[in-house]
Amino acid sequence: METVRIGILGMGTVASGLAHIMALNQDIIQYRTGKILEIEKVLVKNLNKNRDVDLDRTRFTINVLEIIDNQNVDIVVELIGGIHPAFEYVRDALKNKKHVVTANKALIATHGEELENIALENGVRLMYEASVGGGIPIINTMINNLPANDFTEISGIVNGTTNYILTQMTERNLEFDQAIKEAQEMGFAEADPSSDVEGDDAAFKIAILSYIAFGQRIGLNEVPKEGIAHISREDIKYADELGYVIKLIASSQKRENEIELRVHPTFISKKHPLATVKNEFNAVLLKGNAVGEVMLYGKGAGAMPTGSAVLGDIIAIAKEKFGENKQPIHPSSTKYKIVNKGYSQYYIRMDVVDKPGVLGYISNIFGKNNISLASVVQRYKHDLVAPLVFITHEVERKNIDDALQEVRTYSNVLKIASIITVEKSII
Amino acid sequence: METVRIGILGMGTVASGLAHIMALNQDIIQYRTGKILEIEKVLVKNLNKNRDVDLDRTRFTINVLEIIDNQNVDIVVELIGGIHPAFEYVRDALKNKKHVVTANKALIATHGEELENIALENGVRLMYEASVGGGIPIINTMINNLPANDFTEISGIVNGTTNYILTQMTERNLEFDQAIKEAQEMGFAEADPSSDVEGDDAAFKIAILSYIAFGQRIGLNEVPKEGIAHISREDIKYADELGYVIKLIASSQKRENEIELRVHPTFISKKHPLATVKNEFNAVLLKGNAVGEVMLYGKGAGAMPTGSAVLGDIIAIAKEKFGENKQPIHPSSTKYKIVNKGYSQYYIRMDVVDKPGVLGYISNIFGKNNISLASVVQRYKHDLVAPLVFITHEVERKNIDDALQEVRTYSNVLKIASIITVEKSII
Repeated sequence: METVRIGILGMGTVASGLAHIMALNQDIIQYRTGKILEIEKVLVKNLNKNRDVDLDRTRFTINVLEIIDNQNVDIVVELIGGIHPAFEYVRDALKNKKHVVTANKALIATHGEELENIALENGVRLMYEASVGGGIPIINTMINNLPANDFTEISGIVNGTTNYILTQMTERNLEFDQAIKEAQEMGFAEADPSSDVEGDDAAFKIAILSYIAFGQRIGLNEVPKEGIAHISREDIKYADELGYVIKLIASSQKRENEIELRVHPTFISKKHPLATVKNEFNAVLLKGNAVGEVMLYGKGAGAMPTGSAVLGDIIAIAKEKFGENKQPIHPSSTKYKIVNKGYSQYYIRMDVVDKPGVLGYISNIFGKNNISLASVVQRYKHDLVAPLVFITHEVERKNIDDALQEVRTYSNVLKIASIITVEKSII
Repeated sequence: METVRIGILGMGTVASGLAHIMALNQDIIQYRTGKILEIEKVLVKNLNKNRDVDLDRTRFTINVLEIIDNQNVDIVVELIGGIHPAFEYVRDALKNKKHVVTANKALIATHGEELENIALENGVRLMYEASVGGGIPIINTMINNLPANDFTEISGIVNGTTNYILTQMTERNLEFDQAIKEAQEMGFAEADPSSDVEGDDAAFKIAILSYIAFGQRIGLNEVPKEGIAHISREDIKYADELGYVIKLIASSQKRENEIELRVHPTFISKKHPLATVKNEFNAVLLKGNAVGEVMLYGKGAGAMPTGSAVLGDIIAIAKEKFGENKQPIHPSSTKYKIVNKGYSQYYIRMDVVDKPGVLGYISNIFGKNNISLASVVQRYKHDLVAPLVFITHEVERKNIDDALQEVRTYSNVLKIASIITVEKSII
């Protein structure tokens, strides 16, 4: 039986998961591929550290060339993360005609184009299923299972940390600050959670997904981002009352020659499949012009799910008998313009002076800006301040901003507390 | 550019969808595959019928040999349905070294093993993504995207007709008879709906999915089936009250050396992702020992979604440059025993005489049979007859049957109206 030799860069959580799955499912994988998969070398920083993996000490090295320039290595698996030196290692491995599998979203979102070109020039594969959605096989599903489709939309919940926080805020009536503290204590959020909370992590992922779906590279500065730190218990309560839950959604839509993408908190109808995606789970919704809507749901992180995705890519390469890579994966002949119109329904919450006529005055301003209203919640609290909540029909964000500029000058409006997108019900 | 020539058997709904997608997405498919896909010949019954597809008349034939024994055909697409003569056509096409793509669940569920062996002997592919779940790419996801996993469970909503009926019964408070009549009028149910309603269609599909997941062929007589015709508005109301919806679930679970599979109405918690799968949508939930739970959701039928799945298989074969098929797709070295234990929670509804002591007497019988109760709903209606509803903890079906045999002999029990499985909350 042929042996496929794997070199791993890094021995952190995902690498441990990968090694564990390779051992656990060894027989079934041999049976399915007709090959033996073997870990040849692993790059580590410290040779003396005790590691919870069943690998001989001689397999570890601190010299990256023993992996990326080793004749006995067929596939290089990059799991060190970050952009440098991961970029240089992956680039050199590809130039040495090694297939590369990576879970590195930052690397692929920023240097994917250059690396894929190098892979093509050298006739080897660059695969990165694990870079988005952990165990959810969203990238390979688009490339290999739904290639008959012209995709028009891809959106979903792709950050487990923020989904965990929002779920806890919703189910246990916590404020953001409490929820994030708990998430940190439970290991669901990092000590510095800003990359998750401010939407950077989701922006990397939607940039990668947009490339796979639409064949166009997206610069990270082209993804408008809004995090979840400003979401209050009160917004979650109104959402619930109006039949919604709040989720951090990364979305990308193609219309004619335009692509619009963003990361932002969004009202999701409780009847929508994305509404049941809780805690650390992720889900991605695709729209293709043949298949219609397809959703994939699963664990968005963790050693075993992410290891499953990495090993899936390794097996795909192994099954191909190292077939030469001649075809770019999902290119497009069209060049799309990236736009930022924010055409959507909106939820707007404000604090107003509790007296008659205020609602009418504000509604008038909305009307002048071509904003029509889907629902209004007004509670007379017989107090000085009353909350006023609107859900608009679909409109461009510019109209909302123009209207609110005028609303802000109205003396009876004390504060515009929240503006949150409401999902256009896809299903 | 290389041309891949396709011969289609049958020109019904799915074939029209396929032809339509091939025309609609021609550019994008050429770009992705580097090949030109062309319909060479189509087998029809009547050459004179007007057809809503953009194909030259000379492409149609009534002679099957012009497709399955035609040197100019690379891939045969079987879309005539039923077992005969589809089986003979597919068999002969494979023997003539044509790759075959089919959407025929009955054929694959009954003759899949024989046909796959013939395909292997002849070094060609037999692919059937469209046989289960319409556009949902569940089969290829298991084979190609999640090959690192030992699967332990596959279950889901795989029949759109029954899901449509149950959704309408739930949302509009209809009885089964009304709902099916409407479904027939709207084209969601056939004139003779028995294959859907009695669970045969779902049984074909779970047999195929079990093979892909566990590598074991399942005889159709090994799948216990229970349809939805006996589900009443009253059961749906109690389900709602207790936090559930009723769905027709096809499920298959592997434990050690056993597989247990079945098709049956099931109480699904409203918090479960399967609960939001409505009307004609399908969803399949997978459990792998590395990836954990993954769910795929989408349209389970229709010309375009099913055409998308068929074309996905065609493109996969085309991209492989007709690579020789040497490896069986998902075999297993283990032979599993098929069991039928029905270990689950159960919902039981009965009509009893409305007087004190009845609940205690019945609970006693349950206790003797090691059935413990998760919830009881008793409504004193101050009438002769009162409904009594139980949800048990997990127990084998035999215990339920034994207990109910004794319950039936109790003079204060007028009728045991319903016994329905309650999902073991997977997520």
